[in-house]
Amino acid sequence: MMNNDLKNLDLKHIWHPCTQMKDHENIPLIPIKKAKGIWLYDFDDKAYMDCISSWWVNLFGHCNAYISKAIKEQLDTLEHIILAGFSHEPIIKLSSRLCSLLGDKFNKCFYADNGSSAVEIALKMSFHYFLNQNKRKNKFLSLSNSYHGETLGALSVGDVALYKKTYTPLLLECLSTPVPLNDDFEKELNALKNILEKHSHELCAFILEPLVQCAGNMHMYKAEFIDEAIRFCHYYGVQVIFDEIAVGFGRTGTLFALEQCKQKPDFVCLSKGITGGFMPLSVVVTKDEIYNAFYAPYETQKAFLHSHSYTGNALACSAANAVLDIFEKENIIEKNKDLSFFIKEEFAKLKEFDFLSNFRTCGMISAFDIVKSKYQRAGLEVYQRALVKGLLLRPLGNTIYFMPPYIVTKEQISYVVQSLREIFKAF
Amino acid sequence: MMNNDLKNLDLKHIWHPCTQMKDHENIPLIPIKKAKGIWLYDFDDKAYMDCISSWWVNLFGHCNAYISKAIKEQLDTLEHIILAGFSHEPIIKLSSRLCSLLGDKFNKCFYADNGSSAVEIALKMSFHYFLNQNKRKNKFLSLSNSYHGETLGALSVGDVALYKKTYTPLLLECLSTPVPLNDDFEKELNALKNILEKHSHELCAFILEPLVQCAGNMHMYKAEFIDEAIRFCHYYGVQVIFDEIAVGFGRTGTLFALEQCKQKPDFVCLSKGITGGFMPLSVVVTKDEIYNAFYAPYETQKAFLHSHSYTGNALACSAANAVLDIFEKENIIEKNKDLSFFIKEEFAKLKEFDFLSNFRTCGMISAFDIVKSKYQRAGLEVYQRALVKGLLLRPLGNTIYFMPPYIVTKEQISYVVQSLREIFKAF
Repeated sequence: MMNNDLKNLDLKHIWHPCTQMKDHENIPLIPIKKAKGIWLYDFDDKAYMDCISSWWVNLFGHCNAYISKAIKEQLDTLEHIILAGFSHEPIIKLSSRLCSLLGDKFNKCFYADNGSSAVEIALKMSFHYFLNQNKRKNKFLSLSNSYHGETLGALSVGDVALYKKTYTPLLLECLSTPVPLNDDFEKELNALKNILEKHSHELCAFILEPLVQCAGNMHMYKAEFIDEAIRFCHYYGVQVIFDEIAVGFGRTGTLFALEQCKQKPDFVCLSKGITGGFMPLSVVVTKDEIYNAFYAPYETQKAFLHSHSYTGNALACSAANAVLDIFEKENIIEKNKDLSFFIKEEFAKLKEFDFLSNFRTCGMISAFDIVKSKYQRAGLEVYQRALVKGLLLRPLGNTIYFMPPYIVTKEQISYVVQSLREIFKAF
Repeated sequence: MMNNDLKNLDLKHIWHPCTQMKDHENIPLIPIKKAKGIWLYDFDDKAYMDCISSWWVNLFGHCNAYISKAIKEQLDTLEHIILAGFSHEPIIKLSSRLCSLLGDKFNKCFYADNGSSAVEIALKMSFHYFLNQNKRKNKFLSLSNSYHGETLGALSVGDVALYKKTYTPLLLECLSTPVPLNDDFEKELNALKNILEKHSHELCAFILEPLVQCAGNMHMYKAEFIDEAIRFCHYYGVQVIFDEIAVGFGRTGTLFALEQCKQKPDFVCLSKGITGGFMPLSVVVTKDEIYNAFYAPYETQKAFLHSHSYTGNALACSAANAVLDIFEKENIIEKNKDLSFFIKEEFAKLKEFDFLSNFRTCGMISAFDIVKSKYQRAGLEVYQRALVKGLLLRPLGNTIYFMPPYIVTKEQISYVVQSLREIFKAF
């Protein structure tokens, strides 16, 4: 079939995620035939550079040979088995490696399939941790402008109105504290302190995306705020959940964002990049101290009885082990420092346009905002013009961001910036 | 590594799903090295027959060559891409096939990664459908003894106290109506009618697992009740969600349980068997009438903006297409009729034990209950003794069930029943 036939059959039967389907009356829907490295190819052999790592999941390029090989070998051995009562080597290896990489006291892995489910697990665990000690707390705290997923629990701790507002009557009532807007975060820290003073008796946990609020228009904020915030939370007996679903696996310049913080959370949620963009997998990593609060005779009913059928899928775990191999063998974090610097320098060239502002870079995430435009949906305008130039960018509102696979070359980065200059010149 | 080394490393770092981890002080935790067909092999080469399809997901045996090949080919072409604005052939093919197989007006597929997320999507869609028509409804109705998953929204519509009770303060308040306990369901139908009369103005949808409540101890009930229930719901303007996550893909004797019902629901949630037990994938299938209520100019904010990063993963969709191929080519549904009859006959032999009761079979699910025992956890006792005999059974409380991959042979079925006879003789 060709692009058009496939497109028509698609629109007949598929309801796409995070999409007003009527937009596709004007915006192309692009069926992709194959992909390799940073490139996606449609059925007319047009190539698109995947500048957003296919929703922030792809790390080492599409159809990466090393990850593919690991999954194929696993397919010949053990594709999947139940993880209750049973186990398998890829998950044991992966868990041991994740704990060792996260360091500190992170020592127990609880698996699921997507980021939302991981967030729900962390929320339920924190609530249940207190309950198992006869402490009845049932509120959660999150940052303004936060995003933690789409299932009702995860949505409840989010703050992006676009996703959340509609469903308010179905959501848990949560508390919110302001995220720092710049390097001076005294006001935000005081706000947090006030909330903790007033509500710590009912607060289970404070959940946050460390360093970058990705779906919150790539808002970046300081590790120092996080350190102070964790100190306060722990002082007031409130647990801390790091949602590293988007920022984990090298996005912020370190393997995990928590490496840039002096204070450590109680739970870390990981997903997206964990399989290098090959397939769904998520995990909540926590400490023995928390695990031990659930470890008791069966009759006491203290167990954490959460499960998903495919929890700890062997194929996904092999992919994740292959991803960790690549980080180690190819010294990715070190190489990315050079790339990150180059990206920042190149994107600075776009400052020539006075309607662009807030240029920011953190590791392998770079973003800026269109602050003035004749177009009502300026971001969407950029999306469409970029497609014509063979670039898959997917702005968040009027925030344009670049979040490429780590195999991106300097030439490709320069091509993206050059293309954006051409787009904005004609804007 | 050997069984014991792996087991120790596992227990050091993995928090297993749906498990009181302290149980593993007495119950073996079994690392599996490889699997083929119905057999799992540990690192000492002991074989276990997978009598529960690894939590109800495996359909055609472990490491099934045909499904494996499909995933490997996909790995060489396109492992995954973002499904917003983009698409790929496996998902277009799969969606078109699912719609055609479900028939009636099921014409739109919305994808996610696990069953819980699919249930959350159906709940949010139903709520949002009414909201888009300015009808403010925000309650859901489910059956007593129901189970729909573990994320907070999905848990809210469940009724299995073991999973739900602990988290009550975090859950949505939902309405519950009794599931029929036997073939006479007049009382239950009246109860439903009363609830609908009183609450239809605030009820978005009624969610149910058609024919078999799997996690609810494999409770089976009549299609006739479902037909009447749907008729009532639709009369009162309440939508109906079929959770076919466990019962879909042939478990109840037809490809989908809804084929056994005259009245059709508004949403169908599918997962588990959809990839033949290879990897996570879920989908909500619904009708154009519902899709159209969200189809509007972007500015009206009527779009369904739910998403998960790996929504519509290409590897999982290829696996699902391979599964549908096998159903077609090998005439599985027809062959299963013979197997189902044989399973029923064989399991009837266990009626010789007066402490066993409620023998029931529906398609490829067979179950009975231990109604009297000197053991406090009689099901667990069976679990352990079955393991010694090389059988993976995983009772739900004191309900023993058999839910094998469809490749099970008559000899294997007889071996399971013979082993259970030996176990119960020494009980």
